[in-house]
Amino acid sequence: MHLPSVLKGHKDKEEEPKDEQKAPSGSAEQSQQPAQEGGDQPLSKSALKKKAKEEEKARLKAEKEAKVAAERKAAADAREQEEANDFAKQFYGKVPLNRSQDRPRRKHDVLVDLPSKVGETVLLRARIQTSRPTAKNCFFLLRQKIDTVQAILSVKPEKVSKPMFKWGSQLGSESIVLVEGVVEKALEEVKSATIGNVEIQITQIHLVAEPEKLYFSLEDASRPEKPGGEDEDKPENEEEEKQDGEDGDKTRNNVLLKTRLDHRILDLRTTTNQAIFKLQAAISDLFREFLNSQGFTEIHSPKLQGAATESGASVFKVSYFKGQAFLAQSPQLAKQMAIAADFERVYEIGPVFRAENSFTHRHLTEFMGLDLEMVIEEHYHEVMELLDQLFLFIFRSLKDKFSKEIETVGTQFPCEEFKWRDGEEGTLKISYSQAVDLLVEDGVDRAEVIDDMDTTNEKRLGRIIKQKYDTDYYIIDKFPLEVRPFYTMPDPNNPKFCNAYDFFIRGEEVLSGGQRIHDPVFLAEQMTKKGVDPESMSGYMEAFKLGCPPHGGGGIGLERVLMLYLKLNNIRRATLFPRDPNRLTP
Amino acid sequence: MHLPSVLKGHKDKEEEPKDEQKAPSGSAEQSQQPAQEGGDQPLSKSALKKKAKEEEKARLKAEKEAKVAAERKAAADAREQEEANDFAKQFYGKVPLNRSQDRPRRKHDVLVDLPSKVGETVLLRARIQTSRPTAKNCFFLLRQKIDTVQAILSVKPEKVSKPMFKWGSQLGSESIVLVEGVVEKALEEVKSATIGNVEIQITQIHLVAEPEKLYFSLEDASRPEKPGGEDEDKPENEEEEKQDGEDGDKTRNNVLLKTRLDHRILDLRTTTNQAIFKLQAAISDLFREFLNSQGFTEIHSPKLQGAATESGASVFKVSYFKGQAFLAQSPQLAKQMAIAADFERVYEIGPVFRAENSFTHRHLTEFMGLDLEMVIEEHYHEVMELLDQLFLFIFRSLKDKFSKEIETVGTQFPCEEFKWRDGEEGTLKISYSQAVDLLVEDGVDRAEVIDDMDTTNEKRLGRIIKQKYDTDYYIIDKFPLEVRPFYTMPDPNNPKFCNAYDFFIRGEEVLSGGQRIHDPVFLAEQMTKKGVDPESMSGYMEAFKLGCPPHGGGGIGLERVLMLYLKLNNIRRATLFPRDPNRLTP
Repeated sequence: MHLPSVLKGHKDKEEEPKDEQKAPSGSAEQSQQPAQEGGDQPLSKSALKKKAKEEEKARLKAEKEAKVAAERKAAADAREQEEANDFAKQFYGKVPLNRSQDRPRRKHDVLVDLPSKVGETVLLRARIQTSRPTAKNCFFLLRQKIDTVQAILSVKPEKVSKPMFKWGSQLGSESIVLVEGVVEKALEEVKSATIGNVEIQITQIHLVAEPEKLYFSLEDASRPEKPGGEDEDKPENEEEEKQDGEDGDKTRNNVLLKTRLDHRILDLRTTTNQAIFKLQAAISDLFREFLNSQGFTEIHSPKLQGAATESGASVFKVSYFKGQAFLAQSPQLAKQMAIAADFERVYEIGPVFRAENSFTHRHLTEFMGLDLEMVIEEHYHEVMELLDQLFLFIFRSLKDKFSKEIETVGTQFPCEEFKWRDGEEGTLKISYSQAVDLLVEDGVDRAEVIDDMDTTNEKRLGRIIKQKYDTDYYIIDKFPLEVRPFYTMPDPNNPKFCNAYDFFIRGEEVLSGGQRIHDPVFLAEQMTKKGVDPESMSGYMEAFKLGCPPHGGGGIGLERVLMLYLKLNNIRRATLFPRDPNRLTP
Repeated sequence: MHLPSVLKGHKDKEEEPKDEQKAPSGSAEQSQQPAQEGGDQPLSKSALKKKAKEEEKARLKAEKEAKVAAERKAAADAREQEEANDFAKQFYGKVPLNRSQDRPRRKHDVLVDLPSKVGETVLLRARIQTSRPTAKNCFFLLRQKIDTVQAILSVKPEKVSKPMFKWGSQLGSESIVLVEGVVEKALEEVKSATIGNVEIQITQIHLVAEPEKLYFSLEDASRPEKPGGEDEDKPENEEEEKQDGEDGDKTRNNVLLKTRLDHRILDLRTTTNQAIFKLQAAISDLFREFLNSQGFTEIHSPKLQGAATESGASVFKVSYFKGQAFLAQSPQLAKQMAIAADFERVYEIGPVFRAENSFTHRHLTEFMGLDLEMVIEEHYHEVMELLDQLFLFIFRSLKDKFSKEIETVGTQFPCEEFKWRDGEEGTLKISYSQAVDLLVEDGVDRAEVIDDMDTTNEKRLGRIIKQKYDTDYYIIDKFPLEVRPFYTMPDPNNPKFCNAYDFFIRGEEVLSGGQRIHDPVFLAEQMTKKGVDPESMSGYMEAFKLGCPPHGGGGIGLERVLMLYLKLNNIRRATLFPRDPNRLTP
């Protein structure tokens, strides 16, 4: 924990404003040292001299103190009178608790519009990110979501009074203020602000709300992270050594992930996080926009299930009245049932629950699944190609419409620009067997990857492919049947493989899917082979016994796409309030 | 259960096609009666006569049987030869299991496009809803989602052979077929089809999948329901008496809700259900479209919570590794925390879990919440007015863009057209006190409604308002503080009331919301008053201690809006796979 450093931007609200005139340092301080210890012994000449000197010192000190006190009193009297006569009284102060007692209907402005309002008076509510008071000016960095701008409070005759200046100067970081001011062109670019070409000359400033305590400063929370997977596959509290800034300056600390997550509300206020979650929302929006244009219908399937199903992955058990229920590990069964119910093309965006006692950089116990399922007319590559088009649409749209957000995140999480193949050659699609060959060529033992690939080899493959094909995005098709769930359609020609694919971003899987078995007899056979009793899933089996068309689909992990696209290195950073086996709050 | 009636549309796939020529009935049957019992006694004259008659009868029978057998053999030989020489062999039959072995890339058509394709040959995959074979023609009603069209199979030289006709005629209801045919103008409107102005002359027909068994016919499942709340507040299995068709014809049964839900996949195939769930998706889409245009960001908050919180409503307990977790009863706390984290305006569409042991027409244990929360600049009516604009946008867009779906549902669930005030006068907004006055004027005892209103009085109020103001949609503001949750901001002037509202559709609540307390000290006071320990919700409290702007919001029940807008009378009909204390499957 770095409280001394991280708290340096914060002023306690109980703190009294400091007097401008301070007692000269040095002498007064020295005089507060305890007098040399002595006894009843007669004093020597030098001791007498010393005593006289001390007496003279004490006299001078008392004189000075009296003077200071008199000055203080005069200043206080002046302040009191100044406040009593304060022409600016209405222009500052704490507003009463908003209980909707008034509605003056004043128009509120937003920071992002300021560059077009030079010369105008604006009214806006914002956070004070930092406040830097000098004798004559107080410089605020005001923040709204991913925008910051400089605002200046200066004493001005008939506009800003001294009491107003003093009151404004003591406002702490993360206070919410209602500011009225005039937008002016900045004399020189304000580098600390995202909107650097204008600034606000404050004419009114009121306090709406303020923090009782801060756990770290947003300046510290926004410092650039070291590039690379620094906290990959480490529990959030095992990264103590990694806290130093890149320049080795101990006072410029980054904030630990654990500290951030413990006080996530504060952490989420950084412009980086505001941008990350804008991009998260954008990915879902683009997912829906594309699929709606392709005739898909959004569905909502129940997360409470009567039976623990689907895969060996652990499932959460729920007390359900006198019995029990289970949390859905995916909408897989439900979306296939929707296909049997003639919905033709469906998607769902919803939480997915996995009771895996895992602490890697890419596992959570609850995450958002972007799932889809569709009828196949002839071949499962219809699905794979549609999913590819979906990803390309998302990549293109993010680049076109959200470059500001991507840049904002990039200042804290620097990474190479995301690359994909968008020409006529199209997305790189290779078979699992070809992927194995690439790894073997690179020196991996074939036996190690022939049946399945671990994360390390997946990432190695990602590096090989990046080097060879210059793409961060690719598809691997025709996985070994053995490693896919019971509902996967085997390859028609080679019983070792199946009609299933994974999609990868920067060497990690973000989508898994394939053709499903739609024939109830064949499905029951495959279930039995995989040790699943078809009787235990009678509701699911009925979907196929009622006649079901050939179909396929896939499931995307929203947070994984976001983490890998932005190279955030830990899935917790791509999740509003992450959940893992150790974390259920906030 | 109505298996005999509901199964009448279904042909067992094992059933052999029947011979066209049947043995004449009557005589042969009689001859199979056991001979009269006798012994060794000598025969009387009349007995002898009878014996001779029987022998003659037997001879005639044997002769006839031989003839029939010969005819059958000839017919079988002819058929065999016909099949062997069948010119149409490639035009019909069951397709092999689709394992993506081929990809001929033939373009598939959809029913809805057929009216523009008269004279063209089309290829399409569809369900057979019904098949009506006559001697020369077989009439199919083909279905895709909310569309149906008639298709005809008839023997035609060099086009449709007799074996093809026979094979096609025995295809059962709910089989999935791949049909090639020529689109023709219908000689007269086909009333049973939604696309009645064209029909398909089949040239090829292949079977893709077929049901093993049907639990009811889709014809029965699509019959009009009696208008009015016939199964309101009744558990799904207590409605046995209500099954008869309106005309009292016992053979034209509707299908019980319980039967539908037990075999929901089959039930969901009705054009009514296809339309209902298209409208459900539309409401979410419109919700997002409007809020995105107003600067909202979509968030996803965790459903797994560390503490049982918020309200007295029962909460589901989850085994969470060595401890326990709880399922979120709403995203209320998380969305307020997002406001404290400076998201400004957020919404979430996600499941909400309520462990209430309730079986009413409007309660489920899991439903979809459409939730939003936003910063208030001056007054909570900013939120109320935005929510009103949201609803008006949804109502207008549904009417403009989804009239076909609304009409489709209306054929099964007839109801008065949904009315709202869209002129300058705007939405009807009354205070709770005014609502009480309306009820008292109507004869309700004031004491009964002064503090809270039960469902019966809410509905009564809905009828009063409908009569007086001609609107199915209205807002009640300023509820008694006593009946609202601890986080509700009290009215600034009258401590009995608070800054909270409910929105109503056809006399039932669909949205609840208001201004929240954003000051941590005041919030802790109110929590303590309501018996909630602020310490037990420290993560939530931290949001306010970190400084939070004034804010408000609301939560909408997606299925309730859908049910009430369409007057489906039971929320289970507005839910894909509903969950209540007794139902966890399918």
